[in-house]
Amino acid sequence: MEFLVHIEIALPDAMPDEEKQRLAQAEAERGAELRAAGTLSRIWRVPGRRAKWSLYSVADADELHAALSSLPLFPWMDIEVHPLATHPAEL
Amino acid sequence: MEFLVHIEIALPDAMPDEEKQRLAQAEAERGAELRAAGTLSRIWRVPGRRAKWSLYSVADADELHAALSSLPLFPWMDIEVHPLATHPAEL
Amino acid sequence: MEFLVHIEIALPDAMPDEEKQRLAQAEAERGAELRAAGTLSRIWRVPGRRAKWSLYSVADADELHAALSSLPLFPWMDIEVHPLATHPAEL
Amino acid sequence: MEFLVHIEIALPDAMPDEEKQRLAQAEAERGAELRAAGTLSRIWRVPGRRAKWSLYSVADADELHAALSSLPLFPWMDIEVHPLATHPAEL
Amino acid sequence: MEFLVHIEIALPDAMPDEEKQRLAQAEAERGAELRAAGTLSRIWRVPGRRAKWSLYSVADADELHAALSSLPLFPWMDIEVHPLATHPAEL
Amino acid sequence: MEFLVHIEIALPDAMPDEEKQRLAQAEAERGAELRAAGTLSRIWRVPGRRAKWSLYSVADADELHAALSSLPLFPWMDIEVHPLATHPAEL
Amino acid sequence: MEFLVHIEIALPDAMPDEEKQRLAQAEAERGAELRAAGTLSRIWRVPGRRAKWSLYSVADADELHAALSSLPLFPWMDIEVHPLATHPAEL
Amino acid sequence: MEFLVHIEIALPDAMPDEEKQRLAQAEAERGAELRAAGTLSRIWRVPGRRAKWSLYSVADADELHAALSSLPLFPWMDIEVHPLATHPAEL
Amino acid sequence: MEFLVHIEIALPDAMPDEEKQRLAQAEAERGAELRAAGTLSRIWRVPGRRAKWSLYSVADADELHAALSSLPLFPWMDIEVHPLATHPAEL
Amino acid sequence: MEFLVHIEIALPDAMPDEEKQRLAQAEAERGAELRAAGTLSRIWRVPGRRAKWSLYSVADADELHAALSSLPLFPWMDIEVHPLATHPAEL
Repeated sequence: MEFLVHIEIALPDAMPDEEKQRLAQAEAERGAELRAAGTLSRIWRVPGRRAKWSLYSVADADELHAALSSLPLFPWMDIEVHPLATHPAEL
Repeated sequence: MEFLVHIEIALPDAMPDEEKQRLAQAEAERGAELRAAGTLSRIWRVPGRRAKWSLYSVADADELHAALSSLPLFPWMDIEVHPLATHPAEL
Repeated sequence: MEFLVHIEIALPDAMPDEEKQRLAQAEAERGAELRAAGTLSRIWRVPGRRAKWSLYSVADADELHAALSSLPLFPWMDIEVHPLATHPAEL
Repeated sequence: MEFLVHIEIALPDAMPDEEKQRLAQAEAERGAELRAAGTLSRIWRVPGRRAKWSLYSVADADELHAALSSLPLFPWMDIEVHPLATHPAEL
Repeated sequence: MEFLVHIEIALPDAMPDEEKQRLAQAEAERGAELRAAGTLSRIWRVPGRRAKWSLYSVADADELHAALSSLPLFPWMDIEVHPLATHPAEL
Repeated sequence: MEFLVHIEIALPDAMPDEEKQRLAQAEAERGAELRAAGTLSRIWRVPGRRAKWSLYSVADADELHAALSSLPLFPWMDIEVHPLATHPAEL
Repeated sequence: MEFLVHIEIALPDAMPDEEKQRLAQAEAERGAELRAAGTLSRIWRVPGRRAKWSLYSVADADELHAALSSLPLFPWMDIEVHPLATHPAEL
Repeated sequence: MEFLVHIEIALPDAMPDEEKQRLAQAEAERGAELRAAGTLSRIWRVPGRRAKWSLYSVADADELHAALSSLPLFPWMDIEVHPLATHPAEL
Repeated sequence: MEFLVHIEIALPDAMPDEEKQRLAQAEAERGAELRAAGTLSRIWRVPGRRAKWSLYSVADADELHAALSSLPLFPWMDIEVHPLATHPAEL
Repeated sequence: MEFLVHIEIALPDAMPDEEKQRLAQAEAERGAELRAAGTLSRIWRVPGRRAKWSLYSVADADELHAALSSLPLFPWMDIEVHPLATHPAEL
């Protein structure tokens, strides 16, 4: 089942730059793993915002939550999840 | 997988009363079928509104859409779907 | 350039059923053309709603508007357009 | 009487990890007590968020407030309460 | 248990004036009954709007829904219900 | 003239517990004075929130503001005021 | 006591032009009476909308409602009322 | 002074096509006049919607309202006006 | 040209009381100057909030911004500006 | 392709004044570069707010994001992007 996921990231002002960079690096690595596994099938940047739209392909909401909460930046993410049904045009 | 579903119903003013009653009857029958099948596990009325909260247990969003769009009142429903993940307290 | 497009459809109650069916048929055909042309790359149904998420790949907002306004159901659509930028993870 | 309860949790960034763990442990224990007492009949996680939907079965709003404010994480919760009426389909 | 209830009324433009007057009369009578029974303890008009705030004292959400749906204007009301808990200052 | 008043309280995380208790005590005392004076005629707790609905009976908005800003917790309150007109059913 | 009042007007499409003109004329006359009486002290048009901001000076919400509901266009108005308190700069 | 103006158009379903075309033609002509006069300096289409953003250069809100209400489609427009101040970068 | 201006003030919790008093004093003085100059023609307090409605009479949005940003509390203000057009009833 | 961009800036209270000035200076310089390059074609201040509307002319959302994220104040900006299509009146 697919989910369209909107993620907005807000790091605290007080976080040191090297911590931000370490987290960004870890986030990119975990994202690459999820993409390699086919869990995260597409990802886009929202222009002008620290935000992204992404497309997850998982068994159910439990696997989705496991994937999202495995992201190193998860504690600073505001996430909205849109469940998707198959459109007849894609059958 | 479970979904929490909020349904608001707005029948057009011009619909004749017997048509409203026929639809209500058909809706009750289809609801009973979905409950017997275990698809619709709980249903509550929102006090003061022509609205309900219901709890669906389905394989995925496709089966959920099939169930919801099988309801006779579906064309007059405004539906919002909340996907649910398992809470550790229920494992 | 890609756009994420949310479409909600509200046909007037008074529209005759055969007109609705004729429009649905024409909509499916135009959708197939846009998919064959690569303009409409993905499309999903929003469970429980007469709504869809779709992914358009076009040159710019002009081509997007031309594609969307070519849909037979366009006069009854409420459309929201989200421009997408490339995410570094997809480079 | 049943209430559908939406809870969103936001712990302050500055809270030490061991304090967070101690609170999570205490929260799980209090939740188990409320479930054993039949006060908290169902609980789900909102995928991608530090949030949950839960279903309380209490005498009235006073007992509901007593139960919710007994949760160790209550000071950091944003709670919305939806009163539920019996649906005829469940009579 | 008490509920604070916000009611907004929108009669259709096409409804004949005598029907509006008949409904207003029936509404006033039913309101008087609910007040005499102690179900409806207070009622205020929202200045400038066809709306009111009212205070209901009932056993639970079922009795509240029964009272509200017994109002002759119920089919044209948009109702929002706020459950109330006892404040320690009133104990 | 009566006003329906919704008050939400948010104390800063960093405020010491004894300060919170001192303020809660002072708030209860000031509330009792306002109730004894007939200014604050009713007060309810919003279940699950640090919020209350209250009913003020004052000469006008100036007296209302004076009463509300005399509350010890006023600096941490988010207050919304709903002016009330007399409903014919109470004449 | 003063109230800031926002009024949005939506006449039904089907209303004949002469009825609209008759109402506009009656509205202007009633507005002039309220201004002459000092009840309506200021009035502005919202540019680009069939809307206005106005400033009422009345004894209380009852007199305000009486004034607003005496307007011939009242049945087609969406009105929001903001109670005003005296600012120390005007004392 | 400049104003950024957002216009959304909703023609009634029942309006005959030739009336829609006549209005669209008249709207285009009036728009051309406003552009020639320098009143309407820029205009854009919102992709996917019957909406536009436009930039007006007028003396004040009175001239703006006169320009907007001179548009043949004005009775079916929902207009939001954003006043603009000069940015130092353009001085 | 007149503007209706809504101002909400939120001083940081950590600001020392004497700084708050110094700012309030400076704000009152600057307000008096703007009133003496006819720029700020009316000002009201929103009951129960640290907020005010005010009425500015200025040449255009540039003069309005200059006036508002000259207020000592401007850095802590959340301001919304409503441009006003002349209503025919005041001509 | 053009984008209408709304930018709201919120600098943290704790940021020293010289840092704010240094950033404002750098922002003005980067803005001048973008204007000289034709990327940023117009810019306006929102009266009463630390906000601006600006008009970008770029190849696509990638170039837009690159331009916006090159602004020195970008980490403290809340940005909303509106894609624009050509209006027939400008062809």
